[in-house]
Amino acid sequence: MTTDYRKMWEDLDISMKKHDQLLAVLPLVYQDVYLTQKNRPQAMEYYDFVISGVHGIRIKELLEAKEGGKKVVAYFCLYVPEELVIASNAVLVGLCGGSNFVDQEAEEVLPRNICPLIKASYGFKAARICPYFQAADICVGETTCDGKKKMYELLNELCPVYTVEVPQKSDTEQAKELFYKELKILKSKLEELTGHKITVEDLKKSIKMVNAKRAILDMLIKTRKASPSPISGKDSLLVSQIAFYDDPQRFTQKTTELVKELEERIKKGEGVVDANAPRIMVSGCPMAVPNWKLHHIVESSGAIIVVEESCVGTRYTSMGQIDSSANTVDGLLKSIAEAYLSIHCSCFTPNTERVEDNVRLAKEFKVDGVIHYTLQTCHGYNIEAAKIEKVLKEINVPMLKIETDYSNEDAGQLTTRVQAFLEMLKK
Amino acid sequence: MTTDYRKMWEDLDISMKKHDQLLAVLPLVYQDVYLTQKNRPQAMEYYDFVISGVHGIRIKELLEAKEGGKKVVAYFCLYVPEELVIASNAVLVGLCGGSNFVDQEAEEVLPRNICPLIKASYGFKAARICPYFQAADICVGETTCDGKKKMYELLNELCPVYTVEVPQKSDTEQAKELFYKELKILKSKLEELTGHKITVEDLKKSIKMVNAKRAILDMLIKTRKASPSPISGKDSLLVSQIAFYDDPQRFTQKTTELVKELEERIKKGEGVVDANAPRIMVSGCPMAVPNWKLHHIVESSGAIIVVEESCVGTRYTSMGQIDSSANTVDGLLKSIAEAYLSIHCSCFTPNTERVEDNVRLAKEFKVDGVIHYTLQTCHGYNIEAAKIEKVLKEINVPMLKIETDYSNEDAGQLTTRVQAFLEMLKK
Repeated sequence: MTTDYRKMWEDLDISMKKHDQLLAVLPLVYQDVYLTQKNRPQAMEYYDFVISGVHGIRIKELLEAKEGGKKVVAYFCLYVPEELVIASNAVLVGLCGGSNFVDQEAEEVLPRNICPLIKASYGFKAARICPYFQAADICVGETTCDGKKKMYELLNELCPVYTVEVPQKSDTEQAKELFYKELKILKSKLEELTGHKITVEDLKKSIKMVNAKRAILDMLIKTRKASPSPISGKDSLLVSQIAFYDDPQRFTQKTTELVKELEERIKKGEGVVDANAPRIMVSGCPMAVPNWKLHHIVESSGAIIVVEESCVGTRYTSMGQIDSSANTVDGLLKSIAEAYLSIHCSCFTPNTERVEDNVRLAKEFKVDGVIHYTLQTCHGYNIEAAKIEKVLKEINVPMLKIETDYSNEDAGQLTTRVQAFLEMLKK
Repeated sequence: MTTDYRKMWEDLDISMKKHDQLLAVLPLVYQDVYLTQKNRPQAMEYYDFVISGVHGIRIKELLEAKEGGKKVVAYFCLYVPEELVIASNAVLVGLCGGSNFVDQEAEEVLPRNICPLIKASYGFKAARICPYFQAADICVGETTCDGKKKMYELLNELCPVYTVEVPQKSDTEQAKELFYKELKILKSKLEELTGHKITVEDLKKSIKMVNAKRAILDMLIKTRKASPSPISGKDSLLVSQIAFYDDPQRFTQKTTELVKELEERIKKGEGVVDANAPRIMVSGCPMAVPNWKLHHIVESSGAIIVVEESCVGTRYTSMGQIDSSANTVDGLLKSIAEAYLSIHCSCFTPNTERVEDNVRLAKEFKVDGVIHYTLQTCHGYNIEAAKIEKVLKEINVPMLKIETDYSNEDAGQLTTRVQAFLEMLKK
């Protein structure tokens, strides 16, 4: 891969030496974490292929789109509506960072003790390592946490960033009004960037396109209700992660194939692990590529993760199908705003719905235990964990609370804690 | 003091043993930090008296007010408009915690690695140590940071909390509209609590009352432009801290006497330190009673703090005089909402105005250096520090960035860093 794309990366002003180091490491990690898994679904080949070409093929596609006059819009969070960006005729790519590879560059400006995702998101631009970032014409930020909100201001000194305000209550009239108006402004910004005036037809089409993506992801999630689960947590996580930057139509098609295969497996009672392996729900902070740390530890310890109450899990699909029946741009924007405010992110106060979701999912997926996952100093999820532990206790589902970053320093300690938790569940 | 008030504290369900420990320690700390200062203004006697009766006299006043039918409203942040609470015929008390005395109780529920102010604010209720908390009929929270926002949800399980949404941008029409509507709802909540319908006259009166308090605090701040400063940073900080829970009219009267004395001192060229002592600005997170840690270290090292760009400093007074000319309750509420959104808190994005304030204040107060103060893991101020350091560098004002909590563990290290910084300034 490196030989074919060097010229492309140089043109994108990639820091080549450091980038070479990254590309030397990533395949080894992927081999170790993913390709050693047993009983993988055949259809995972596509996602393996995507990862193998993560800085190559997809970037080439983006650059070809740019040559054809399209713009590339980068984002970091579910709260930036894909529908709006797609309707503006731009290509959308998710840029959340999942590696501590650029911590040094990030910490030249950012505090050390902030969330690793925020450090990575900034660091990949500061270090000029990420071709997606280099190809982006604009980044769209949001105000879902203090750390990202303020990081975007510093990122704006390195590349153009536009931040959308997400309200802090999701159920008041004034919050709904604010978010709708914010999306209206975002729409104008996108139109200005792309030179394309968003029409009712554009929005109807993009809503349907993303609805289809969400529907198939939702079906994927539901296959994991089966016992044994037809797919590992790691593989399902990977699919969700790739959903953030792959071409949405191709992604939906490929994931439809995967789901078909998984449904066949379920019929045959075929799974990736023994039916008596402990079934775990992971709840909390998102995991960006290549953050497979917790899933790898849990599944290497003989358990299986069957659901993620997470932005790379049920929070991605929970809004269901957005209503595209309105016949005005404003009407469709209102549908979008309303749907997105139904994502139960810890950025909202109160966020009782997420607490309830945890109970519901624990029951629906028949989990034996929950691991609450907090990225270091993510105050929102970290504090909310107390409420979730309380309600899970009421239904006799044990919870292990962990807080970690992207380093391997605590991997040994985490493994010990996870294994002790699994032992406890077996008793 | 303990003998007179034991019955009162018991009636408030104070945890007596732990409270006794607190009361045994506080006077010793106050003696050490405050009463050993030289050349203190005579008028500081009042504030010494307030602190000496901090859990006694003022609580007795609150309870008498309650017996007279008044309600006690507690708050934690500048963003809860005093004017509205006072107009509802309630008594307002600030509850921000400034001590790690109750960390153990707080950490039973909250994460360890969050801001010490948040831990203390929750912990004083959880441990039943704070008579203000025990006397409060309701707490009014706000959404100015992730940590407090989510802590209030847990606090709500211990006492009634109502949280006001503060927007995350301060200058958009939709944010202004949201905050105004939030204040309108707060008004209804207060009226429901107190049984008192807020009138135009009530609001005009309370606006004028708080305007007078802000005006005198502003004058106090400005006396410190003199060289030598007529008052220590520690004493000025104490006055600002007491402004959050003292009776506003008495406070204004007493602070007017203090300012008069300071102006006499300025005329005579009299100060608390040598005119050549390094002049320091402290910028960043608020300091709640009894958090005098940084000020004590700096002023014990031969420098003087001449201004705080802080909620216990210029951010308290920067909105100036709120316009009380409107003749409808809604009109006055709009004036209040607009004025409060002009506080340059790091909760906003962007917050360029605070960056500019730092430059302006550094010049106006002729500071030799700035200490940027972050409470542990306060992402907002911690990340914003990078921008402030940059602009201060452009005007050749050195900045020392510190992040600390309420413990004494890092006091030695901080002292060393502060002294090295002061040495550097002298060169």
